[in-house]
Formats: sequence, structure tokens, C-alpha cells
Amino acid sequence: MRIDDLDTPAVVIDLDRLEANIARFQAHLDRHGIANRPHIKTHKIPQIAQMQIAAGAVGITCQKLGEAEVMADAGITDIFLPYNILGAAKLERLVALARRVQVSVTADSPDVVTGLGAAMSGAGLELPVLVECDTGMGRCGVQTPAEAAELAFQIARTAGLRFGGLMTYPSSPAIGPFMREAVRLLRERGLPVERVSGGGTAGMWHAHEHPEVTEYRAGMYVYGDRYTLRAGALRLEECAMSVLTTVVSRPTPDRGVIDGGSKTFSSDLLGLEGYGLILEYPEARIVNLSEEHGVVDFSQCAQKPAIGERVRVLPNHCCVVSNLFDEVIGARRGEVETIWRVAARGTVR
Amino acid sequence: MRIDDLDTPAVVIDLDRLEANIARFQAHLDRHGIANRPHIKTHKIPQIAQMQIAAGAVGITCQKLGEAEVMADAGITDIFLPYNILGAAKLERLVALARRVQVSVTADSPDVVTGLGAAMSGAGLELPVLVECDTGMGRCGVQTPAEAAELAFQIARTAGLRFGGLMTYPSSPAIGPFMREAVRLLRERGLPVERVSGGGTAGMWHAHEHPEVTEYRAGMYVYGDRYTLRAGALRLEECAMSVLTTVVSRPTPDRGVIDGGSKTFSSDLLGLEGYGLILEYPEARIVNLSEEHGVVDFSQCAQKPAIGERVRVLPNHCCVVSNLFDEVIGARRGEVETIWRVAARGTVR
Repeated sequence: MRIDDLDTPAVVIDLDRLEANIARFQAHLDRHGIANRPHIKTHKIPQIAQMQIAAGAVGITCQKLGEAEVMADAGITDIFLPYNILGAAKLERLVALARRVQVSVTADSPDVVTGLGAAMSGAGLELPVLVECDTGMGRCGVQTPAEAAELAFQIARTAGLRFGGLMTYPSSPAIGPFMREAVRLLRERGLPVERVSGGGTAGMWHAHEHPEVTEYRAGMYVYGDRYTLRAGALRLEECAMSVLTTVVSRPTPDRGVIDGGSKTFSSDLLGLEGYGLILEYPEARIVNLSEEHGVVDFSQCAQKPAIGERVRVLPNHCCVVSNLFDEVIGARRGEVETIWRVAARGTVR
Repeated sequence: MRIDDLDTPAVVIDLDRLEANIARFQAHLDRHGIANRPHIKTHKIPQIAQMQIAAGAVGITCQKLGEAEVMADAGITDIFLPYNILGAAKLERLVALARRVQVSVTADSPDVVTGLGAAMSGAGLELPVLVECDTGMGRCGVQTPAEAAELAFQIARTAGLRFGGLMTYPSSPAIGPFMREAVRLLRERGLPVERVSGGGTAGMWHAHEHPEVTEYRAGMYVYGDRYTLRAGALRLEECAMSVLTTVVSRPTPDRGVIDGGSKTFSSDLLGLEGYGLILEYPEARIVNLSEEHGVVDFSQCAQKPAIGERVRVLPNHCCVVSNLFDEVIGARRGEVETIWRVAARGTVR
């Protein structure tokens, strides 16, 4: 079957580009001696995680326990969960996961450490816990190197836990002073830092400019989107994901409506103008999304599409598109080669 | 089980409020002799559609064929699809649907009418087709009453089709002149207008102020959200959906992070400031979402939550939240009464 025969909207992954993206970044990290631990939130597909492992990744990163459970079911044996796991229900699931695969997590507060310790020591397990550091993201994370060191020692002396290192996101020039100072404070007091985990697709080609970072987490590099394009991390001809849509209405000479809206693309702008790039009409602007309609301004296009014409959209943010679809189409040179179930779609718990 | 025992994030529907919302709006439309044809895109749950039918709705509205197929499977027998159905794959599915339930659709161009006619006459069926009118939304729809009349006559003379009336969205004062003129043009030339379909939750209590509207499509009225609250359509104590989340991090005295992000709430702003209202901390602002984190500014709150505390969020847009979850919890006075599968989740085709 050709992708031209697919019903729309459909998410199409160019397999040549996907494979090249996986290989290219793995080679970059290998060259610089940095461990690769890709984030599977982007694709949520075990088969792609397996491709990343086969290419040389040491393990994977998942954001939620549900993602990790799906990946463990698929045979992935080393999973990092850079998230604060709290509450009886989740701690029980974490224990079950830790019994069958190598798991590491993060913490940014004594409360989280206490909960993890009680669950793990009760189960007779030892869990590596990294300290999450807020190096400018303004999300989770301890605020200073001194706080990082203090929490690291709490982890080290908690039964059932092992201090696993430091983690931050994204890797930017700002992380250097914070990470170096935290490492210095810990070494000075005799606590080895086994891993320093950095990440982010936007800065992926600068991963080696942070000598303190020993492993790297990138997600979007496998697919690419308008955000990674603007960040300069991938070129347009390297982007592997597109959303196949149909022009269902042409109410005015300049306006067109495609059959994908916020339930196809999400409303993520990520600072961009418009909701996606139409590959066949790069001068067009997707100016508005409702749930199942995308309103397009074709006024700047010399040629304009007819009703029924199919157009491919490079989305703003590939990770959220994956999460809206039950399956994606793997294609090579326009021919459908495989259909992958997005097995970890919707795993927000 | 109490909702306090649910793992987070979880979508909780207050069943008392849901039932009251369904009854209240049905009574309003009944009082004014307007047919109720609720839009199920908001909940995507057959059981709620059945509640709406039981309360007096004449049928339902679905935006995509996939939604309609799920609802037909659940025994709903009258379905309106106000969407341009195009292409062999979808027309084949539409024929199959029309063989088992009463279906009506819309068109806004001769191309769509031609495709519908060929499919329906080939199958020996007669499909009611309403003309979609753009009365200011700037999405699909013919642009003038004269265009509406012209397309209506094309439908009327197309084998396999019947002119089913006029449709617009949303019902606003602007629709009056357009609809009245279109109806006049059609009656003058002897074509009866069997239905005029309007809609929109924001203007739901003004449905009767448009005497030309004979049926009304509202979706969000069953749940309510920050958008319907701002529109004045529902009061806070009538909103039935909330998202139960946990505060997983308190990195600074003013900042908190909840375990729901854009994969829980979507990034829909709908012109609002912030990404949701925390019911227990109404002065808080959800200032930023990443995929699995919601960053909250608690600086304006006299009391601030501890790590591990659970908070309920009224989302900006209930329809997109439904579409991100496989199931929602139906609760009454804090007690879990039912778990509904969001059976039409992800049906974008």
C-alpha cells in the first residue's frame, strides 16, 4: 500500500529518516564517550525503543510509570524515570517494576526520598536515586548545589536507596557551574557521583560541551518537528514525522480547512507562529485549530490546493502528536512498510 | 472507593452535576420547542449519550465518522455528522453507517455533494444533507445566503441525496440575517427547509433567541470547564469535570509542580490566562505545562500545598481532556460509582 492510499488524518514516519536519526546521534555520543539514554515519551513505541537499544543506547528514559511498564513488558531492561514517584499506589508499582528490570529514579525533596526508601527497603531492593537539579528550567529540582549535596547524603543514608548521581534538563551552558559545584561538594565529602544525566533534543549536538554530563537523554531527535527545526537540531529533510491530512473545504479563495485539528496536532505552539508547516505549501499558515478542523491561510501561495487534495503537515511538537494516535504508519519511499501501535499512548499515571 | 483513593492524574465526573446539566438544558430547549441534538465530542462516552437521549434528545451530533461508528455500535439510532465527508474510504464507511442508523451530514461545496451523491445512489440510499453556512466562524461553510441556496438546489437534484436544511456554528446574533435570507431564497423557489441546526455551549441559554433555529447542538454543557464558566453558560458549582492531580514538587516557597501537563490538560488556552483553575487554591496560577508537569505559581495563596497533597483542577477545555484519557471516573459525593471507558477517544478519522 502507498501512503497515498491511507485514510486521513494519519501519522506517517519515514523509516529511512528515523533510522538515520537514531544512528547519527548515537554515533555523536559514542564519539564523545557519552552514554545514550533516549526518552521514549516522543514515540511511545517499544519497537523504536528496541531500535535505539540495538544502535547502542544503554537504556531508556520514561517520564511516567505507565510508560515504563509498557517498555518493560516489551523486554527493555534498563529504565530511568526522572520523576518524583509519590503515593502508595505508585510506589507499589515501582517496586513491582524494580523486581523485573533495572530502574533508577530521581528525587528533589526529602519527602520523595523518604517514600522511596520505605517502599524499597520494605521490598528488600536497592534503588539508585539521582538528585534532580533545577539549573534554570523552573520546573522540579533542587535550587542550589548545596541542596543537591544535602539530598544526595539523605539518599545515601536511606535504607533501600543508593545515591545514583545528578540529573538536569535541559543541558544548557547554565548547567556547568551548578553541576561542577555539586560534584565538588559531594567528592569533597567522599560521595562518588556515578552518573550525571543531561538532556534535550534542542541542544543535542552540544552534549559534549558539558564535560560533567556522562549520559544524555534526548527524545524528539528520532522524529523531528517544527520546534527541533527552529532549534537547528535537525534539518527539514531529516524530519521523519508528518501528518497526512485532506483539504476538506475551500470556503474562500484564500482559506482552506484540513481534517486535522487540536485532537490531531494538539495546540502546542512552543513559541512558533501557526500550528504546523504544510510541506507542499510552505508559504501557507495554519492560523487556527478547532478540535477536528485546521484553518489554513493560503493567501501567500501561488498555487492553492483543491478540495480533496492531500497535504502533509510537519507538526510543531511531535511528542504530543504521538500521544493522540493509537497507531503510526512506518513508510519507506512512500510505501507503507509497517504499522506500529503507540503502545504507551495515554500513560499519564 | 473514595475519589481520595484514586491514583493521579484522573478525570473525575460529578454525576449529580452531570445529570443536572443534562436535565436543565433539555428542559430549556423543550420549553422553547427546539430539538436537542447534543454533540458527543465532549465526552465520547456512549453511556452519557444514552443519558442525553433518555432525557429527550432527538439524536446526537458527532464530528468524525469514527465517533459515529462507536455511538452506532452502542445503539444510538440518529446521528448528525456536520462535517465534509470526502474520499473513497470514508464514503464507504458512511454508506455502511447509513445502512444501520439514521444519518445526516453537511456539505459546503459542490465537490462534497458530488461525492456523497455517487456513494449514496450507488448504495440505493437517500442521505439528508444540510448546507453548512459560515456565519462568522471563519472555518468551513458557504459564504452567502445565495451560495447556500445554490448548493441546496444541487443537493436536491442529486440522486441519493435529500436537502436536509441549513447548519451553522456557533449560534450568535450574526446568524439571524444570514439564515433568514437563505430560508427566504429557498422557500421562494419552493424548496422546504426541514431543519436549521445551530449550536454552541457558550450561547446555549440564548438558543431560543434565534427563531430560525429548529435544533441545537451543544457539547460542553454536560461537563463545563473554565471556558464555559467565563462564557457565563455554567456556574462553578455546576461544572462536573475536574482532574485530580498530586503536588509532586515544591522547589521554592512559591512554586509547585503537579503531575498533570499537556498530555493531561492539552495546551488549549481558549483565550484564558493559565492552564486551569485549582479548586482548592483558586488564587494559584498554572503558569506553564510541559508534557507531564504543570508548574503552578502559589505566590498569591495564603496557604500553600505540601508535597503529596492532592488538588483538583478545572480544565480550560473539557473536550480535549476527555480525548487524552482512556477512562473517566463517575463519582457521587466523593464516592466512585462507575468507571466509563472513553470509547470514542482518538477517533479522528
